[in-house]
Amino acid sequence: MKRLTIGIIGAGRIGNVHAESITYHIPEAEILMISDVDSVKAKALAERLGIPKWSDNHLDIINNPDIEAVLVCSPTNTHADITIEAANAGKHIFCEKPVDLTIEKILQAKAAVEKAGVTMQIGFNRRFDHNHEKVREIAQSGALGKVELVKITSRDPAPPSAEYAASSGGLFMDMMIHDFDMAQFLAGSPVKDVYAQGAVLVDKAIGEAGDIDTAVVTLTFENGALGVIDNSRRAAYGYDQRVEVFGEKGMAADENDCDTTVRVSTAQGVVSDKPQYFFLERYMGSFVKEMKAFVAAVRDGTPAPVTVDDALSPVILALAAKKSMAEGRKVAVREIMETHHV
Amino acid sequence: MKRLTIGIIGAGRIGNVHAESITYHIPEAEILMISDVDSVKAKALAERLGIPKWSDNHLDIINNPDIEAVLVCSPTNTHADITIEAANAGKHIFCEKPVDLTIEKILQAKAAVEKAGVTMQIGFNRRFDHNHEKVREIAQSGALGKVELVKITSRDPAPPSAEYAASSGGLFMDMMIHDFDMAQFLAGSPVKDVYAQGAVLVDKAIGEAGDIDTAVVTLTFENGALGVIDNSRRAAYGYDQRVEVFGEKGMAADENDCDTTVRVSTAQGVVSDKPQYFFLERYMGSFVKEMKAFVAAVRDGTPAPVTVDDALSPVILALAAKKSMAEGRKVAVREIMETHHV
Amino acid sequence: MKRLTIGIIGAGRIGNVHAESITYHIPEAEILMISDVDSVKAKALAERLGIPKWSDNHLDIINNPDIEAVLVCSPTNTHADITIEAANAGKHIFCEKPVDLTIEKILQAKAAVEKAGVTMQIGFNRRFDHNHEKVREIAQSGALGKVELVKITSRDPAPPSAEYAASSGGLFMDMMIHDFDMAQFLAGSPVKDVYAQGAVLVDKAIGEAGDIDTAVVTLTFENGALGVIDNSRRAAYGYDQRVEVFGEKGMAADENDCDTTVRVSTAQGVVSDKPQYFFLERYMGSFVKEMKAFVAAVRDGTPAPVTVDDALSPVILALAAKKSMAEGRKVAVREIMETHHV
Amino acid sequence: MKRLTIGIIGAGRIGNVHAESITYHIPEAEILMISDVDSVKAKALAERLGIPKWSDNHLDIINNPDIEAVLVCSPTNTHADITIEAANAGKHIFCEKPVDLTIEKILQAKAAVEKAGVTMQIGFNRRFDHNHEKVREIAQSGALGKVELVKITSRDPAPPSAEYAASSGGLFMDMMIHDFDMAQFLAGSPVKDVYAQGAVLVDKAIGEAGDIDTAVVTLTFENGALGVIDNSRRAAYGYDQRVEVFGEKGMAADENDCDTTVRVSTAQGVVSDKPQYFFLERYMGSFVKEMKAFVAAVRDGTPAPVTVDDALSPVILALAAKKSMAEGRKVAVREIMETHHV
Repeated sequence: MKRLTIGIIGAGRIGNVHAESITYHIPEAEILMISDVDSVKAKALAERLGIPKWSDNHLDIINNPDIEAVLVCSPTNTHADITIEAANAGKHIFCEKPVDLTIEKILQAKAAVEKAGVTMQIGFNRRFDHNHEKVREIAQSGALGKVELVKITSRDPAPPSAEYAASSGGLFMDMMIHDFDMAQFLAGSPVKDVYAQGAVLVDKAIGEAGDIDTAVVTLTFENGALGVIDNSRRAAYGYDQRVEVFGEKGMAADENDCDTTVRVSTAQGVVSDKPQYFFLERYMGSFVKEMKAFVAAVRDGTPAPVTVDDALSPVILALAAKKSMAEGRKVAVREIMETHHV
Repeated sequence: MKRLTIGIIGAGRIGNVHAESITYHIPEAEILMISDVDSVKAKALAERLGIPKWSDNHLDIINNPDIEAVLVCSPTNTHADITIEAANAGKHIFCEKPVDLTIEKILQAKAAVEKAGVTMQIGFNRRFDHNHEKVREIAQSGALGKVELVKITSRDPAPPSAEYAASSGGLFMDMMIHDFDMAQFLAGSPVKDVYAQGAVLVDKAIGEAGDIDTAVVTLTFENGALGVIDNSRRAAYGYDQRVEVFGEKGMAADENDCDTTVRVSTAQGVVSDKPQYFFLERYMGSFVKEMKAFVAAVRDGTPAPVTVDDALSPVILALAAKKSMAEGRKVAVREIMETHHV
Repeated sequence: MKRLTIGIIGAGRIGNVHAESITYHIPEAEILMISDVDSVKAKALAERLGIPKWSDNHLDIINNPDIEAVLVCSPTNTHADITIEAANAGKHIFCEKPVDLTIEKILQAKAAVEKAGVTMQIGFNRRFDHNHEKVREIAQSGALGKVELVKITSRDPAPPSAEYAASSGGLFMDMMIHDFDMAQFLAGSPVKDVYAQGAVLVDKAIGEAGDIDTAVVTLTFENGALGVIDNSRRAAYGYDQRVEVFGEKGMAADENDCDTTVRVSTAQGVVSDKPQYFFLERYMGSFVKEMKAFVAAVRDGTPAPVTVDDALSPVILALAAKKSMAEGRKVAVREIMETHHV
Repeated sequence: MKRLTIGIIGAGRIGNVHAESITYHIPEAEILMISDVDSVKAKALAERLGIPKWSDNHLDIINNPDIEAVLVCSPTNTHADITIEAANAGKHIFCEKPVDLTIEKILQAKAAVEKAGVTMQIGFNRRFDHNHEKVREIAQSGALGKVELVKITSRDPAPPSAEYAASSGGLFMDMMIHDFDMAQFLAGSPVKDVYAQGAVLVDKAIGEAGDIDTAVVTLTFENGALGVIDNSRRAAYGYDQRVEVFGEKGMAADENDCDTTVRVSTAQGVVSDKPQYFFLERYMGSFVKEMKAFVAAVRDGTPAPVTVDDALSPVILALAAKKSMAEGRKVAVREIMETHHV
């Protein structure tokens, strides 16, 4: 059985994560080349994992006829263009989220992928998290009956710099984008309208840069269910990632993962572990599982579990949230779609 | 030390609860008379607890010079008028929530109470719940730093009849009224504006009667914090009552109370108890504590812990929520107050 | 329906507990008299609860023809004699544990009770604890299959004085006596043999007084199951009361009760409540339930749920444990019984 | 920096586990050869992980001058002889537990290792488990004060065949051996004496083969603390692995690991995950950590964290437990040591 040959574009944090997943956990795939505009990084990663080639030019991967699939792990503003190049070269594509901050670019990438007939999977890794995935499975199984309410808590352990916040597209586009995807994944239905309330409570500089750091967003889904997401850029106790699906027959909810199950009981109280610190700790298992799913989809010729349409929808919701917050009213998804001719 | 003498108006479910609290747990008070328009009920309660007198006319309590305080446990639409009568007769008053469904009547009751200079406490018993009260104490202690987010989940085990729903003032006025009070209690700040999203997911008949049975409401507080309340009229697993306060230094959250701590582990999984069934089970302790607080406030001449102003505020929020849902936009509390000349 | 008339002998801590249970929670019974050698105590309790008579002589209760049942709440060394007097006077008897520290005296009391044909219930209140009772019910239901192992953890929050320890009959007789009863209750089988290991780890003075403060005891039951009890006189975090029944189909286990379900998450960890402090907090509900059961048994003429034989058995186990520890070997219950002609 | 070169003797389940740990997680080491008497197994493992050589003769590893360290993963009855061969050849040794079922053979292996001056580490992997390791750290830190009681629950999900049980050395030698090591690890002290009570409750055939399937063992440690271990060969709900250290200032205890944190609440109750199924699931992380520790110890020339003396001690305790059960009395460790001239 031939291994799927892969090239990785981008040797930053997430490029390293995927390279390790493939090397250590996916014998059905092999990495032929790593590229990064910083060739020192590309070389270091290649040598660390025994990858045969590296380059400072991603076109060396795009143009390599031995490579069947590429992982787009470069900065966000290059995702769409590289996706288009890769699709045109007939490569299967795994692209980190978001594909782009604009609807228009995502639609261009989508068109290229569809024209080329290649597989494209988007890096919404949280769908593969052991906890959230089980909540989804229970909801899908019918054990909860009709879904009535989806709740997501998603809080980072520490805020980014104000510069990052400003350039990232803002909290809705950079952080809540994951939760918009998760909400639809859990509800089993697309969102119909959005109401967003945001605030600057963590860091004034983030506010001065035009962004918010705390938000509560209410969703209504096409299937009638309600949803609510809360985000904060700073949870003193660590990365807080909890979901809850409530339906006519009951509720499935998960708790944070911790490093240990140890409880210490003293005269001062009973102390247990904080949640795992951040996404590399908490979601490491999900990165491996999403990559296995991508490799399997390409090799088996089956649909990717997270498609380019799944990339588009959360961006539309983020735009709706921005508009809602600005205007103090509920915004229909249709409104955003019509404005952008989706 | 002389006992506080009490008359109870209304021998229904909550009248019985308060009568038991005083008889069994509050030696500093004694009940002299019970009244109910249904004299059978009044007599039954009086005999059960050894209360010397009963009547089918609440004026027998109002006009009894030996009675210092009255508990208004009659139907909601009589609360305000009886409060005014009692205040005019110089009685201290414990009144079940809501004092009235209209702002105007509450203001009249407030005026009568202030003119008479009597103590008035409102039956927002959940403030005295062991779990929620501790969350509030931790938040007030500063251990969480500045409060940034308050979350409340409040779900009933089974929906009321559509008739009840229609006559009750609706979900915001009848059910979420408790949560509006709790939200401000936990945030330590009044609400500034409200966004409400409701749905009919549990019982179509409730929708046909003009009400909703599921809702998510977003709050912004004067102190800048955000809040979110979710309500459902039907949780298959029982009464779901959880609160969470999140701040710059951490989070305090409670879980539901259960009858036992037993866990049963078998090949099918690990099973633990459902939440206690409904408010009489879950909040019984809080009813005793609120009554002790009322008796103490009257005897010591100290302010009641839940005042007539605390009765007004959640009604304003309920009206704001109704308006918000109707108009699909955020509604400022000030808007409602100006309309009603508060 | 006539109320059961009760006299309480002993107005100490446990006498007060039972007097409150009856007054506040058991309308089917009424207390006619309280006695205590310290008449000040008797009078104070009588006045506090509106009990009509008090005395400094328990014979005033024994000889009172209006009293149908007596509660023996006096010091342990008087239990057997008062029980015999009460039985001879035809009273039904609720006697605090232990009935006596010697087998011989318990047998005398048993003979008197049986001769008089009165109901006698022993104060092993923990059988009525909401958690332990549910574990027992699950085990009895067959949901765990054949019981294979029973584990009990029982630790006090603070050690008694060395004087108390010495005069109490020692840890096995004074403290583990409850756990011996609980073990048989949970296993649904009498104990066959005992191995005991003890140590002085908490307070040297307890050792100097001839007692131990920490112990692990292994049991084998007649039905083949194994058991283990651990006791400590000092748990820094409070009263630790947990049981576990393990069988062929699974396990039922309980956790300690806490005052609240609140968890506080900060940079320092996640902190929850300690167990409730001691037996008056943790087991208050069980005291009410055992008294209800006694009143019901007498009024209905049904067998008491905890009989005089249940008083005897744990004393035999305590004697076996003492012997085992002294001799470093397993001791058969039969050995103790034969020595004492049971 | 040169990698540590390794040969693995035995390509069964645990040989595969260690081979994967080194290949995927320990860049400081490389595997040069695998041997197994079944060369098909050796070849399969070598090819799967890209290991250059394989053999059906472990002497090809022992005699390979390029190999610095060997992992002894062959059947138990070969451990001691291979260890001696490897030591004589100057190899560092990682040997699975138990080194042997007899004290004499372990002493021979120990002598060879000491004479050769090589590093030897024993495969008591549970010391490296994230939960148990943290309990130990807390106990060692002094946060619990003087240790007074150590409790270990260790239950397998399903019993082995009676044949296996008989040939394995029996429950104390095959299963509780891990818990004897863990007990001393947690107590921070060697055991002084042992009392063992066993039973055949799970499978009569195990009894007929001369073994037991359920046991409770009481320990006293040299430092005065008490200990208790319970073992069962069959827990219907999965692998049950919990430890508890209780001391003068409090308690540290762990719970089982589960696959997810999800709780499902319905009208039937609240259901959460069972413990992970067996040791390959639960202790996988510990296998990686013990191997990292071995590689580090050899490369740094520091003492191994689990030495050949740690192999000897649990075997002595297992022999003491056997003797105790046979004779119904407490057996001193010294008794066993003197008999075997240790």
